[in-house]
Amino acid sequence: MERKEKSSQDESPDTIKILVATDIHLGYMEKDPIRGNDSLTTFEEILRLAKQNNVDLILLGGDLFHDNKPSRKTIHGAMTLLRKFCMGDKPVEIEFISDQSVNFGHTPFPCVNYEDPNLNISIPVFSIHGNHDDPTGLGTLCSLDLLSASGLLNYFGKYSSLEKIEISPLLMQKGKTKLALYGLGAIKDERLHHMFRNKNITMLRPRENKDDWVNVFVIHQNRSKHGETNYIPEQFLDDFLDLVIWGHEHECRITPTSNGVNKFLVSQPGSSIATSLSEGETKDKHVGLLLIHGTEWKIKRLKLETVRQFKMQDIVLADTSLNPQDADIAKKAEAFCLEKVESLLREAGNERTGNVSQPDKPLIRIRVDYSDGFEPFNKHRFSQHFVDTVANPKDMVFFHRRRELHLESKPGM
Amino acid sequence: MERKEKSSQDESPDTIKILVATDIHLGYMEKDPIRGNDSLTTFEEILRLAKQNNVDLILLGGDLFHDNKPSRKTIHGAMTLLRKFCMGDKPVEIEFISDQSVNFGHTPFPCVNYEDPNLNISIPVFSIHGNHDDPTGLGTLCSLDLLSASGLLNYFGKYSSLEKIEISPLLMQKGKTKLALYGLGAIKDERLHHMFRNKNITMLRPRENKDDWVNVFVIHQNRSKHGETNYIPEQFLDDFLDLVIWGHEHECRITPTSNGVNKFLVSQPGSSIATSLSEGETKDKHVGLLLIHGTEWKIKRLKLETVRQFKMQDIVLADTSLNPQDADIAKKAEAFCLEKVESLLREAGNERTGNVSQPDKPLIRIRVDYSDGFEPFNKHRFSQHFVDTVANPKDMVFFHRRRELHLESKPGM
Ligand SMILES: [Mn+2]
Ligand SMILES: [Mn+2]
Ligand SMILES: [Mn+2]
Ligand SMILES: [Mn+2]
Repeated sequence: MERKEKSSQDESPDTIKILVATDIHLGYMEKDPIRGNDSLTTFEEILRLAKQNNVDLILLGGDLFHDNKPSRKTIHGAMTLLRKFCMGDKPVEIEFISDQSVNFGHTPFPCVNYEDPNLNISIPVFSIHGNHDDPTGLGTLCSLDLLSASGLLNYFGKYSSLEKIEISPLLMQKGKTKLALYGLGAIKDERLHHMFRNKNITMLRPRENKDDWVNVFVIHQNRSKHGETNYIPEQFLDDFLDLVIWGHEHECRITPTSNGVNKFLVSQPGSSIATSLSEGETKDKHVGLLLIHGTEWKIKRLKLETVRQFKMQDIVLADTSLNPQDADIAKKAEAFCLEKVESLLREAGNERTGNVSQPDKPLIRIRVDYSDGFEPFNKHRFSQHFVDTVANPKDMVFFHRRRELHLESKPGM
Repeated sequence: MERKEKSSQDESPDTIKILVATDIHLGYMEKDPIRGNDSLTTFEEILRLAKQNNVDLILLGGDLFHDNKPSRKTIHGAMTLLRKFCMGDKPVEIEFISDQSVNFGHTPFPCVNYEDPNLNISIPVFSIHGNHDDPTGLGTLCSLDLLSASGLLNYFGKYSSLEKIEISPLLMQKGKTKLALYGLGAIKDERLHHMFRNKNITMLRPRENKDDWVNVFVIHQNRSKHGETNYIPEQFLDDFLDLVIWGHEHECRITPTSNGVNKFLVSQPGSSIATSLSEGETKDKHVGLLLIHGTEWKIKRLKLETVRQFKMQDIVLADTSLNPQDADIAKKAEAFCLEKVESLLREAGNERTGNVSQPDKPLIRIRVDYSDGFEPFNKHRFSQHFVDTVANPKDMVFFHRRRELHLESKPGM
């Protein structure tokens, strides 16, 4: 399938417009006095973008919540924002075609929320769960079940069998455009890997006029290889798909790419908040505007403006003019790094988006390689210089020797 | 004010009909395989009664939830039932008159839910919090805030000042009938006691035509004296009130009574589930149908039919024909008690309500006084006889000596 840029079609009554986002991680570091509200701030921006762009629906790819049991404040914040932005008088123009008792059979109201006569929904939200907000405990429920029970969100892609899964698509139509939306909530990678290998994952397809449908699959798994079976190779996925929205991986690689083998393209929106101080999280963060017209589609990137800035730099002391034999080398190395951070802060200052809701203090990370006779300096004293200007003074410096970088902690995505 | 029985007025367009309940304790013993669903079962019955009786609103007096942080299953169950029973096309005929930004100013949507154009509410629920579900943690929120944010419940009576509280009534009108509804969520008894004593609790009143209003106050505190200041004497309450709905006390004493000093009457609905094996919880449980017509009102009792039966008996071994000097007296005492329990089970069997949702196994408690030379028998062996017929085999027997009854544990209400 080709992706053509036909802006004139964007507002056509046949165009399905979808705001696509993943890994919003509501509640991340909520107890931090500086960063505690970041996730909700950007969730609000995402919902506002959906409204401004007049989308037909919002599609979320898992990890809406950071904690499996989010605090009351976080659930309350999510509910408040959804009620504020996704309810209202704008009519939803998508016709829901598939059997809702199948698509939402796991919920007490197996009905898409905008067709419930008791709810006035302007933008329906559809979400799968991620590994952070997966179903657990009594009743095997997750936080999305609370949003679903209260009518604020359509939770799909919940399959409980550990042996065989048949994924039934949500079939939607707007004018001549037909969307088959497949979803699969996060499952342990190894287990899903084996289920795919053993041909126990089946994607059901509409019986008639198969070629009229645009087939989108949203999944939340490891995409990059972490061991033999601890990821899902793209090649496992069905080739009738047109687009795969890949959640879980936090680096924004939203522009759809082909692996050269499969016919489908993969878009990886990435997280809307940095939950680790790793390279991938330093990239600009975007959500997608997926436009489907007939059997053509494209994704426009929408840059998020409220994301806290994150600047990272690698410093190899041996590559500088510093001499490890100097009497006061520790002091000199510290001064060198101080200057580097000041420089990152200036850069951040120059690159602010101008959005009033963007937090002011950036995240800073310098990874200092002290191989070849250098010594680490005192991190705590170093951070004292930046308590008023950096969001994460306590963990801004990471010391390592050559080839130790893999030791850096990476919290689960 | 007189209470007159005028059934003809019950369906008058001027009659405000209110389903009154307190202490529903959702989630109580939810992990117990036998009793785990009791609280939700009876909450459903209460909501069904509200619907069948065509009430204008539901008023809850606190402790809707048993745990401050209820499980996802319990919150999910509450949301599901509220959405099922309290949304729909029946128009709400109550005109809301007071300033909603004052009444609900502590919530993100300071608006009574049935006036929100995005929600189709058929029965608005109004609730204060109890001591079990009071606001705590980040943001000082409680479970009712989640129900409020999602539009399923109107949470009122939340005052955070520890020094001075001005209670603004919810003013509602239906035809010629005017209701001023005052609410005060649970506060530590000692603190509230002192605030009352120091005249720091003020009940605001409508400026005009004060006498046209029926004034109802819902409160969730100790009513019976537990120490000098660890309760709220009825005499502390304003005498312009007509009716006080007293939550927290679990014994059903719903028929309004006067203390002979104040002009108002007090109705204590009691809990809808037994959360302790104490005398007060053995009484039949009711909710109230409060009918207000002009300035006259009455409360009809509605007996709850789905409450698990609870039979209790005191056995004083010294008062029986048993002889403590008998060689096999332990065996004989046990046999005597076995027969007593069998008799309680027969009684329970004869007194079933006939409601298909009433759980089958009753709660049983025998309090055995073994003073004057008797010995306790083996409780564990005793309970083995009743694992299939009693809901609480493990704690059905309580041994004590004379004057030790106060030692029996009573969980907080
Ligand atoms: Mn994830
Ligand atoms: Mn994630
Ligand atoms: Mn209580
Ligand atoms: Mn209680």
